[in-house]
Amino acid sequence: MNLLLKEIRHNPLLWLLAFVPVVFVSQKFKPEAHTLLFVLSVLAIVPLAALLSHATESVAAKTGDTVGGLLNATLGNLTELVIAVAALRAGQYMLVKASIAGAIVTNTLFVLGASFLLGGLKHHVQEYNRVSARLQAGLLFLATVALLIPSLVGEPDSAGAAFTQKLSLGLAVLLIVAYGLGMLFSLKTHRELFASAESGEAGEAPWPLGLALATLAGVTVLVALVSEVFVESVQQAAVAFGMTPAFVGFIVVALVGGAAEMGSAFSGARKNRLDLSVGIALGSAAQIALFVAPVLVLLSYVMGPTPMNLQFWPGAVVMVLIATMTASLLTNSGRSAWFVGTLMLMVYAIFAMTLYLLPPRVQ
Amino acid sequence: MNLLLKEIRHNPLLWLLAFVPVVFVSQKFKPEAHTLLFVLSVLAIVPLAALLSHATESVAAKTGDTVGGLLNATLGNLTELVIAVAALRAGQYMLVKASIAGAIVTNTLFVLGASFLLGGLKHHVQEYNRVSARLQAGLLFLATVALLIPSLVGEPDSAGAAFTQKLSLGLAVLLIVAYGLGMLFSLKTHRELFASAESGEAGEAPWPLGLALATLAGVTVLVALVSEVFVESVQQAAVAFGMTPAFVGFIVVALVGGAAEMGSAFSGARKNRLDLSVGIALGSAAQIALFVAPVLVLLSYVMGPTPMNLQFWPGAVVMVLIATMTASLLTNSGRSAWFVGTLMLMVYAIFAMTLYLLPPRVQ
Amino acid sequence: MNLLLKEIRHNPLLWLLAFVPVVFVSQKFKPEAHTLLFVLSVLAIVPLAALLSHATESVAAKTGDTVGGLLNATLGNLTELVIAVAALRAGQYMLVKASIAGAIVTNTLFVLGASFLLGGLKHHVQEYNRVSARLQAGLLFLATVALLIPSLVGEPDSAGAAFTQKLSLGLAVLLIVAYGLGMLFSLKTHRELFASAESGEAGEAPWPLGLALATLAGVTVLVALVSEVFVESVQQAAVAFGMTPAFVGFIVVALVGGAAEMGSAFSGARKNRLDLSVGIALGSAAQIALFVAPVLVLLSYVMGPTPMNLQFWPGAVVMVLIATMTASLLTNSGRSAWFVGTLMLMVYAIFAMTLYLLPPRVQ
Repeated sequence: MNLLLKEIRHNPLLWLLAFVPVVFVSQKFKPEAHTLLFVLSVLAIVPLAALLSHATESVAAKTGDTVGGLLNATLGNLTELVIAVAALRAGQYMLVKASIAGAIVTNTLFVLGASFLLGGLKHHVQEYNRVSARLQAGLLFLATVALLIPSLVGEPDSAGAAFTQKLSLGLAVLLIVAYGLGMLFSLKTHRELFASAESGEAGEAPWPLGLALATLAGVTVLVALVSEVFVESVQQAAVAFGMTPAFVGFIVVALVGGAAEMGSAFSGARKNRLDLSVGIALGSAAQIALFVAPVLVLLSYVMGPTPMNLQFWPGAVVMVLIATMTASLLTNSGRSAWFVGTLMLMVYAIFAMTLYLLPPRVQ
Repeated sequence: MNLLLKEIRHNPLLWLLAFVPVVFVSQKFKPEAHTLLFVLSVLAIVPLAALLSHATESVAAKTGDTVGGLLNATLGNLTELVIAVAALRAGQYMLVKASIAGAIVTNTLFVLGASFLLGGLKHHVQEYNRVSARLQAGLLFLATVALLIPSLVGEPDSAGAAFTQKLSLGLAVLLIVAYGLGMLFSLKTHRELFASAESGEAGEAPWPLGLALATLAGVTVLVALVSEVFVESVQQAAVAFGMTPAFVGFIVVALVGGAAEMGSAFSGARKNRLDLSVGIALGSAAQIALFVAPVLVLLSYVMGPTPMNLQFWPGAVVMVLIATMTASLLTNSGRSAWFVGTLMLMVYAIFAMTLYLLPPRVQ
Repeated sequence: MNLLLKEIRHNPLLWLLAFVPVVFVSQKFKPEAHTLLFVLSVLAIVPLAALLSHATESVAAKTGDTVGGLLNATLGNLTELVIAVAALRAGQYMLVKASIAGAIVTNTLFVLGASFLLGGLKHHVQEYNRVSARLQAGLLFLATVALLIPSLVGEPDSAGAAFTQKLSLGLAVLLIVAYGLGMLFSLKTHRELFASAESGEAGEAPWPLGLALATLAGVTVLVALVSEVFVESVQQAAVAFGMTPAFVGFIVVALVGGAAEMGSAFSGARKNRLDLSVGIALGSAAQIALFVAPVLVLLSYVMGPTPMNLQFWPGAVVMVLIATMTASLLTNSGRSAWFVGTLMLMVYAIFAMTLYLLPPRVQ
């Protein structure tokens, strides 16, 4: 606990933690100040993400990069799951689907691209475990393709609605089974495949495992609570900032929801531990497709006003496929440099621009 | 011949050969018992496939894995060709096209996926000739893309029909020329590229070349005859089992038609000779695109009620492209493990589920 | 200068240079003889391309293959740019877009495919710098994907027109920024990544740098002037030869416009310097997407009757994506042989056949 306080004292970013109680107080006394709550909740999530990042790195230092990466991806995606469940309850399926697609695209293009750029600005050419990256990119490709099959094959007309719903339900069950087998594979039978190419030395002294795990758990709960405030405020704040609903779901929710993982991925890249970054980005995207999306479909039968299907808007399908194929093609070589990251970020920026300009009725 | 009988006596699977005469007798005396004939013909094809597998392996042992693989693919695809010709004569072009697309998807996702899974359950990580696999996957990508161009570019309206027909005919000629050049390449000028990374030792003593070749020829004829019965019965049996026509063409015909190759591919994977499996799966799929499909277009001018074009149902196009790209991305590393195979089989299962649930009028 | 004349005397191809003045004279006295002017201008461009090729190789010999390749691509694409600007002025946006898409497809499928074929007929298996090729293919993929986003996501209806125009303008600015950063990357910060795997010895003695640069400049101007004649005559000559407008823009303009680079790429392949060929083909295609296309969008605001957007015909989108993915998948291995080139040329031939047969109203 002393170690944690010491860490907070030495890291100015963590001073933003002061916003966490401010968010809860403001929500209690000013529940209608949506723009204020939106800004406060983003400011509160950032330091929580940083704390989560350090705790995860401490665990990773004891368990190896990949287990740390998987762990991180799980906790990071908890935020996305919490946000999506809130939207699910309100029957905002468009927002749920946009945040699923957006989280996959943000992880593959933004997190991976920014990691390549940030790492590349410090290190000339970075190498990472090619075998692991190829495998993860291949699995991500299969996972997203599976997720998109109802959109790729389904008919949009009324006769096809029952078909799409049945297909989505069957698919959700298959995806969760595949996710379970994937955990067995990466954590048990073939964990050595996911080991880092270079062990790298962490700049900071790692925390003891107990403190790291406790921080992981506690901060995750705080992220979830602040995320609730964020979800309630984001839609109305979006209108105030002139953003389309598609842009909010795809870009804003995904970026804020993934803030926790991004901290770890970027700090891994700066420390030349690109395996950690690649593992977080690809693992997190795959987990959204294999776990978060099907869980939301199943939960919609319990919590939602009507069952949710997995039929995505065609533009989102294109963006997800492009993002996945980019990850496959670019992680092929096991090397990266700043310009690769720049181009990935540019494609992400073009997606964001497209969604920002999109006439509202099209999404 | 004694060797052949000895083999049959020691391999319980081959006792199913007894069903071969039963099929012919049943067809003669009970031609209207479609469901019975369907089940009997499937039961008869399985041991024939096993026999073919052993004969091919004997030839492969003397000629190298790849030539054996090509040889095997050729004979395996003979079944598909025979089935498709029967459907062609009856003017059932939907079934012909579904079986072409289904054969490509089944070979790349099911045969390759099951090989990776079966091999991976026995061997921790399997390596195979990466250069050869990449080349074959690249050729398969080009072959399927060429096959799909009329579907990808063609206009579905009436003015486009003449255009699609002319394009399909020109394409058929180009594909067959490419197939001939491909044989020249893989069997003559660059055969060393297709050689196996590891020679592996066959568990069983190979047959002499004469017996192996005679068995290959004789069993192929039997497969063809039983396949005829299978085709006649499959449509009506499908109705009895509640399967859609799209499911029958895409999945059932492709699985039964490819049974011969699957035996060899799976046994190769179990023996850690994954080059044989990859060669069979990718080679067979490429051969469907470069040889079987164009031959059927040309034959439709002679045998069919009207000329057949190469315009596929959009869902089939998506499935074939996904299957081909999966093969390219996953064979890239020259390594496989059980989970890769599992995910490929899952995508195949999702395709099958989609086709099973598809409202009949959409295909 | 003596060296230049000596070169011309010894190379029969360069005797075609006599057609250059013939073109200008014919245009002055027979401006309505479109078919004649078309044939003459093609005949004049061929030797200019050859000269350009030799000059570029001389520069390349002093600066390394990649810088030479980039230089070559820049000058080669100048032809495309000049042709497109002429079409832009006349408001023929369909022709401009067809030539952009066609130039990308021609560079990736035809130039790369013919290089693999021509090189492969002379050398059994050719190896090239895999890291560089993968990187270039990855960048090309990102560049073309960015270029195609308005076509992939945009809505074709009237409400979407303003959206597509705004998106195209924003995209043009982003693409040019990316192009500038790409030059910084390949020529400055990471130029060693683009160095050739094998230095190879040029068959002919290179010219001194002064003569080479002067020839490069002078011949480029001549190519531009002859190209003007070519553009004016090509449309009417096309009708005389029975070609559709889509075929003219996509195939004819791209082939003649790229003649200069093709000479260098093919001669590099024959000399077993495949890095030069790959660099020219992929670099040139990427430059069309990142530089030529956005410059044309921006110029349309100044020169054109109305602003031009980046919405392409769906068939062109499919062809460009297939070409780019082919380049990515096939340059993965860093090896090539004649059949790989043959299949790439076959896909190109199928595209050409499709465009030739296409009913005119569809483009």
